[in-house]
Parts: sequence; C-alpha cells; structure tokens
Amino acid sequence: MSKKNSYKKLKHKLHEIIYEADTPTGKIFDIVLLIAILASVLFVMLESIDSIQEKHGYLLNIAEWVITILFSIEYILRIFSINKPAKYIFSFYGVIDFLSTVPKYLSLILVGSHNLVALRALRLLRVFRILKITRYVGESNRLMIALKASKAKISVFLFFVLILCIILGTIMYMIEGAENGFTSIPRSVYWAIVTLTTVGYGDIAPQSPFGQLIASIIMILGYAIIAIPTGIVSSQLTKVEMTETNTQSCPNCLKSNHKENAEFCYNCGSVLNP
Amino acid sequence: MSKKNSYKKLKHKLHEIIYEADTPTGKIFDIVLLIAILASVLFVMLESIDSIQEKHGYLLNIAEWVITILFSIEYILRIFSINKPAKYIFSFYGVIDFLSTVPKYLSLILVGSHNLVALRALRLLRVFRILKITRYVGESNRLMIALKASKAKISVFLFFVLILCIILGTIMYMIEGAENGFTSIPRSVYWAIVTLTTVGYGDIAPQSPFGQLIASIIMILGYAIIAIPTGIVSSQLTKVEMTETNTQSCPNCLKSNHKENAEFCYNCGSVLNP
Amino acid sequence: MSKKNSYKKLKHKLHEIIYEADTPTGKIFDIVLLIAILASVLFVMLESIDSIQEKHGYLLNIAEWVITILFSIEYILRIFSINKPAKYIFSFYGVIDFLSTVPKYLSLILVGSHNLVALRALRLLRVFRILKITRYVGESNRLMIALKASKAKISVFLFFVLILCIILGTIMYMIEGAENGFTSIPRSVYWAIVTLTTVGYGDIAPQSPFGQLIASIIMILGYAIIAIPTGIVSSQLTKVEMTETNTQSCPNCLKSNHKENAEFCYNCGSVLNP
Amino acid sequence: MSKKNSYKKLKHKLHEIIYEADTPTGKIFDIVLLIAILASVLFVMLESIDSIQEKHGYLLNIAEWVITILFSIEYILRIFSINKPAKYIFSFYGVIDFLSTVPKYLSLILVGSHNLVALRALRLLRVFRILKITRYVGESNRLMIALKASKAKISVFLFFVLILCIILGTIMYMIEGAENGFTSIPRSVYWAIVTLTTVGYGDIAPQSPFGQLIASIIMILGYAIIAIPTGIVSSQLTKVEMTETNTQSCPNCLKSNHKENAEFCYNCGSVLNP
Repeated sequence: MSKKNSYKKLKHKLHEIIYEADTPTGKIFDIVLLIAILASVLFVMLESIDSIQEKHGYLLNIAEWVITILFSIEYILRIFSINKPAKYIFSFYGVIDFLSTVPKYLSLILVGSHNLVALRALRLLRVFRILKITRYVGESNRLMIALKASKAKISVFLFFVLILCIILGTIMYMIEGAENGFTSIPRSVYWAIVTLTTVGYGDIAPQSPFGQLIASIIMILGYAIIAIPTGIVSSQLTKVEMTETNTQSCPNCLKSNHKENAEFCYNCGSVLNP
Repeated sequence: MSKKNSYKKLKHKLHEIIYEADTPTGKIFDIVLLIAILASVLFVMLESIDSIQEKHGYLLNIAEWVITILFSIEYILRIFSINKPAKYIFSFYGVIDFLSTVPKYLSLILVGSHNLVALRALRLLRVFRILKITRYVGESNRLMIALKASKAKISVFLFFVLILCIILGTIMYMIEGAENGFTSIPRSVYWAIVTLTTVGYGDIAPQSPFGQLIASIIMILGYAIIAIPTGIVSSQLTKVEMTETNTQSCPNCLKSNHKENAEFCYNCGSVLNP
Repeated sequence: MSKKNSYKKLKHKLHEIIYEADTPTGKIFDIVLLIAILASVLFVMLESIDSIQEKHGYLLNIAEWVITILFSIEYILRIFSINKPAKYIFSFYGVIDFLSTVPKYLSLILVGSHNLVALRALRLLRVFRILKITRYVGESNRLMIALKASKAKISVFLFFVLILCIILGTIMYMIEGAENGFTSIPRSVYWAIVTLTTVGYGDIAPQSPFGQLIASIIMILGYAIIAIPTGIVSSQLTKVEMTETNTQSCPNCLKSNHKENAEFCYNCGSVLNP
Repeated sequence: MSKKNSYKKLKHKLHEIIYEADTPTGKIFDIVLLIAILASVLFVMLESIDSIQEKHGYLLNIAEWVITILFSIEYILRIFSINKPAKYIFSFYGVIDFLSTVPKYLSLILVGSHNLVALRALRLLRVFRILKITRYVGESNRLMIALKASKAKISVFLFFVLILCIILGTIMYMIEGAENGFTSIPRSVYWAIVTLTTVGYGDIAPQSPFGQLIASIIMILGYAIIAIPTGIVSSQLTKVEMTETNTQSCPNCLKSNHKENAEFCYNCGSVLNP
C-alpha cells in the first residue's frame, strides 16, 4: 500500500472519530471534547470573578493554555480530516472554534496589552462553544415538530406583544413623564415589556394613581396574554401526541402518515404491511 | 373618452393601489407605507430621548417633515380615491391618520408655543399608526377562532381576578396599614394586582409577619390561577386543531375519524364518498 | 280577601322581586342593587385615600348614609320576604349584609370614638358584598366542571409546593443567614415562595454566590413547575370540551353522559330519544 | 407459647402499626406521627425567630425535648420491628430520622457550646421529615404518569434554558460591565436566570439603553419559552386523560371509541364483549 493510501486511510479514520459518534473511539472523543468545553466555559466564568482571578490567576492561565492547545489540535484535525475544509471553516461552529483559540495566542504577541478589552471579549466567545453540547441531546423529534408547527403563530403573537408594548409605553410616558422615571419613550417601552412579561424589576415603577391604574391593566393583560403562546404549543403538542401515526409508508403509493391501526392506505386503498 | 371618465379611471386605479394589495403597484405602496410608519414610530421614540433631541434635533425635524408630508399625501389620496370619504375619515384609522399629520402643521402656526404639551401629546398619537401593520400579518385564522371562543370565559376569569384583588387589597390595607406603605385601599389593590400577576415590583412589600403570610397565599394563588386562562386557550385551540378529521364514516364498515384527505377507508379499504 | 291573605301576597311578591330575577321588576331590583354595591365599594376605596377624605369627606359621608339606608331596607325586606329568615340571616351573605350596614349606625352612638379602629375595619367588610356580583356572571359550566375535576390534583400540587418552599427556605436560611436578610426560617420560606412563584419583590435577595446558585435552581424549578397546574387545567378542559356528551339520560336505566351522537344507551342498550 | 414466640408476635404487631396503615392502630400511629412532624417543623421555624426565641425559649426547649423523645422512640421501634434494620437505617428517611434526634442529645454533652453552628444546622435537618407527609397524599397516579412521560422533554428544555442563560449572561457582562452591577459572568448568568424566569428581583438591572434592549429580548423570550414545559405537561396529561375509552370495537357495526364502562354499542345497541 502506497503512502498516499495510508494517508487517505488515516484521514478517513480521523473523520470517523471526529465527525461520527458510532465507533467506540468516536464516543471517547466526543466525551473528552464535551468535558473540555464544559471546563473551558467554567474557566471563562471563573476568570471573570475578580477575587478568583487575583488569587488563582496563575492556575487559571495554565488551565486556559491546556484548553487552548486541546482546542487547537481539535481545530487542525477537523480541517485535516474533512474533504472540503472550507465548509467547516466558514460554518458557525468553525468560526466559533477558531475564535475560541486565537485570543490566547494573540495575548502572547500583544504582551503589554494583556488586558486589551477587545481581546477579552473575543475570549468570552468561547462560551458559544457550549452550543456544541446541544448536539448530544436526544432529538426529541415530536417537540421539534410541534415547535416548528407553532413558529408562525408565536411570531405573530410576539409581534403583537411588541406593538402593544410600544403603544402602552408611549401612553405611560404621557401619563407619568420624566419626573417619575419614564424619561423617554424607549425607556417607557422597556418598562412596559418588564411589566407585561411579569418580570417586574421595580427599578421604574408608576407613581401617580392614574399611572398605577394603567399599570394594573397592563399586568392583568400580561397575565392573560401568556395563555396564548402556551395554548399554541400545548395544542400543537397534543395534536402531535394524539395522532400517533405509524411510520411506514404505503408500498403502492408511498404516502406516509397512516393512522396507527390502519390496515389499508387512506390514499390508494392498497393493503399496508402489518 | 371624456375628462370625467379619465378622472373616474384614475380614482379607480388609486383605490386599487391604496386599498388593495393584489397588484404589483399596490404591493409597492404597502411596503413604502409600512417603512414610513415604522420610521415615524422610530422618530417619535428617538425624539423623546433628551440627549438625542439635543444633538440631532435638526435632523429629526427634517425627517419628521418628510414623514408628515408623506402621510398628508396618503391621507388626501385615501379621501380622494374612496367613494364614501366620510366612512374613512371617521373610521379609527382615519382619525389616527389625521391626528398624526396635523400637529406638525400646527407647530408652524403656534411658533412660540413650540413645546405646547397638548401638541406634543397629539404627535405621540402617531404611534397608533403602528396598528396598521397588523393588517399585513397573516390572519392565523384558527388562533382567532380559538380566542373568540374563549373570550367569554376569559372575561369571567378577569372579572373574578379583579374582585379577588379588591378583597385581598382591602384585607392587606387592614393588616399592614399606612406605616408599611399600604396608604390607601386603591394602592393596596394595586399591590394585590402586582403580586397576584407575579409581576412583583417590590416598591410596596408587606413588612409584618402576618402580612407576609397573606402575601404568600396571594402569590401561590396567583401561581395556580394562571392555569385557568392558559387552560381555556389551550383546550379551545386543541379542539380547533383536532377537529380536522372529516366527519363521514365508511359506507362499508361504518368506521369514522378518517384523515381529512382520505379517499379510502383505513380499516376495510372501501372507497369513501368524495 | 282577608288582610292576612294580602300580607301573604305581598310577601310572595317581594320574594319574587328580591330572590328571583325572572320578572321585569326582579331584574330592575337586581340592577339597582348591583349599582349600589359597586358604588359602596367605590366609596370604601375613596374613603381610604387621605387626600380625598379630607377634601370631600362631607360628600362621602352623605353618600355612605344613602348606601347604608338602601342596604338596610334591602336587609329588612330580605328577612321579611323569606319564609325561614334564620336561613338568610346566618348565611354568608346574610352576615356580610348585616355587617355592612351596622357600623354606620354605631358611629352615631359612639360619636366621640368616631375613628375607632375596630369600627373602621367593620366598615371595610362591605367590600365582601362585591362577591354578590358573581351571581350575575353566567355560570360557564364547563369551566366549573373542569376546575372541580382538577381540584384534587391542584391541592396535591399546592401542598407539594408548600413543602418545597419550607425545605428550600430552611436551606437558604442556613446558607445566607441573618446578615443577608434571611433573619428567620419563616422569612426565608416567605422569600422562597416569592421566588418560586416568580413574583420576585427583591426586598430580600441572596448575596452570597452559593445562595445565588441555590436561588437560580429555585427560579428554574418555579419556571418549570408552573407547567403542572396549567397542564392539569388544560387537560381537564380539553377533556370536557372534546367529550361533548349530550345532556339526556337513558329513558330505561337513567344513565347519562352518552356520546353526543349516541343512539343507543351504552349501559342497557335501549333506544335513546333523538 | 414460648417467650421467643411472643417476642416475634410483638415485633409483627409493631411492624403492622408502624409500617402499614390498614389497621385502626396503624392509622392512629400515622396521625400522631403526622402531627408530631408538623409540630417539630413549626418549632424549628419558631426557634429561628430571635424575638420568639428570647421570650419563649424555655417553652420551645421543652417542646423540642418532647418531640425529640417521641422521635427517638419511633426511631428505636422502627429498627426493632423491621427484619432487616440496616435497610431502614441507611435509607433516606432512616438517616433523616437519626439526624433529627441526635443534635438535641449532643446539646446536653456539649453544654458550653450550646450555639454551635454545625449543631444548629443539624437540628434544621428535621425539616426534611416533612417529606414523610407526602406519603399520605393520594398517589394521583395519572399526574405521575404524565410527569414521568414528560421528564425527558423537560430535562432537555431546562438544559437548553441553562445554556441560553450562560450565553445571554456572558453577552450582558460584555455590554453592561462591572460599573452597572454585572461584576462577573456567574453574576450575569444569575441575572439572566432571574430575568428569563420572569422573577425579576431588580437587585441587578441593566442601565445602558443597549443593555435594556437585550434585557427586553430576554424577557419576551422568557415569556414565550414558558409555553414549552407547559405545553409538554398539558399534552401528556391530555393524552393520559383522553385514552380512557376502551379499545374494542363493536362486534356488529365495528364502531370503536366506546366509553370505558360501556356494555352496549352506542351506535347499534349490540352487546359488547366484556
């Protein structure tokens, strides 16, 4: 076997390990990566706490270098083992993977400017790596079907909520005014969102009796309106759960989505496989 | 063709563009109007921020004049192209359209009183124009059917919540009293609404142990009560979603509950009536 | 006709007007009573606002006397027109009706002690009269059926929430302690309820990182747990809505709850009335 | 009958009383235990209030000794009456039962160190005994079936919420920074959880306009996302509730969907198979 052939074989083997999870080594790779990502997120979080950074800054630096080198190796292997590297490099995860390793190396070159704000921000992007974990979560297909089916309705609903908040915010700006904390319409709209969604920080709160009346109406509205997205998702999920269609397709016309106990195709009348 | 005829034709053409959205020009008109409305709402919001008003007041003034003239032309064309102008003028949108253009012209006449409060308030009414956008949103018919069907039940529910808040507010007024911030019954009722709807500003909060006990009960009540409107909307939507199956039964085996587009019985394979 | 007979007739007529709502005079009586109750609640609320009490105290006093005399007449007529007065007098509404008239008369006798706290508290009981309005609300039977059916489940749920809050409150008392506002276990339990129900006043908030971790878990728990009562009511309402049973009972075995399109009794097989 | 036999009989009798609830004495034991647990929880709570501890400390001490001795007797009897004591001793309740009696005895030995913090913490563990009460709550089987069925989906959902909060918290840390209260990423994540779950303490709140914009998006997101767990539980419960109809179809007309207790077909009146 030629050298080229063994190179190809290695590439194929690596692809199997990195991009697939069926083989034992593929599974081990996934678990190691998962732990590394969780550790890197933990380090990013710990680093942002001043007291920890002061005391254990040296340890965190070492830990970060370990993670960075691990991620760098992963990044290089991913490019090496795929047939079309560009596809990976310019994908969402490709960009995130790149941005989560580069800042640490840059910090070597820009020694003096160690605390460069932009660099720090770049390093925080590593948090997005956590999204990779979502791949490991079981698909939970029905939930996704129901959510996709209700996407349009929920968009309409959110759009309606936004318009409502703009109008209610403007009304409150007229009633309460700057002296009660409603200094501008965007700020009033922010308050309306805080109130309608029942978050209620309390940093801005109506002071005049009439303002409190309007606020009460907004709250009760928000309390009732929340029923709408909930109802949408509930009904969709119920529908998906109840119409337990079996997964086979008709041997004659290929139509699927038959009733669970169907014996004949609802479309062409052929006998279905039991 | 007479002049009158061509006038009629123009009127008809304009009606098609302004009031209908089927023709290409009608669609372009709609999109331009939509952008203009969103821009006008944005300007209203930006204008209310003092720092922006100070810096970019001149630019905002020009932008507002452009919007005002655009809206004025639209208003005149709408009156011109409709057969019964009064119907439009005194409709909700007609009044809003009028009120959203007039204040800017008034500001020319009442030069000295540029900051007249009433005028400023009138200008804010332009925000209601945003409601026009709701026309462009897909009808989402089923949602509307379900909401209309649950309107009566939700009204009963909101009425019950209001009575509950009045009673609970009065009780808290007796328990906590003015020294703990519950200075009057309306204010206590306001607090009860803030608490029951789980908004929880924290501007008024019970201080006495007994008051906190009652408050705890109100919170748990609010936490459980929210299930009612949600349940109402969910069940209505589920009903609407589920009754998609057609109502006929198989002429051979009498089975019903066929899929909406079924042509053959899923049980015995007989041809269903179309 | 003897005097006694005409007395009986008057009593019967009054009973019809006061206790029934089918006759025109009965309806008028109901509407007048409804307005009087709403007015009395409004007066109680206004009276509690110090600034209004100071300015319009005299007017409010007159208005209260009018309401008190109206309610007194209603109370006397109710006792007079019913066959078993004791049944009314010791009913919930009978006690409330009595307590909502008496304090005003007592204020005449106890002139000096006009601001007697106990008396003031008694007068506030008039607010409970607002519950009478609930009688006028359409029954909304299905909602009640569903709520009654879910009562047991929701009780279990609320009981579980309470135990959870006691345990979580105790844990937070140990973690945060008196120096961070968690001065006692009942107060910590109060905080746990405020947090779990997503009310979130912010008057007590965890300060230590570990406390904030536990608080985060409580919040996410509360956010997920709210799904349970909502799910209970939704499913019950869906069941009630979907199983549209017709209201007739079997002419043979008297069983009811037949399927809407049932033609034969599911219990004894007799033909049902169409 | 030998001594050993009567010992065995006593042991069996005790087992019946303590571990089973079918006999009258078993029921009385359960009720006494239940009251003792509730009382002990009440005492733990009261003890933590400084003002009550000062005034009634002596009484509380006596009450605690009574409870401690009662629980000790119960603990010994439980060990004595079970065949495999180790199974009970190392069970969750066994450990809790032990830990809820020991601290009081330790306080005798460690007289000087009466307020030992660790000891106090141990005594608070008695609160967990309240979990025993949950055994007395009717099983509410269907609720449990539905919750178990939705466990996987809700876990996925909570995991997704957590990732969302970490990312949103990191973004807010970059936008707002330490000067606006977002001093570290964990604290920002805590804020994101407080906001997304609509708790909204207000101890940390965004100050910059851009931060308030992101906060608004988080709130609306939280307001919409809550629909997902609710929908999951609702649909599961609906499914469980609705599948109460029996699965057989009529032997004569083949109609299915009969009521669970139906003996005759609702469509043709034929006798159904039992």
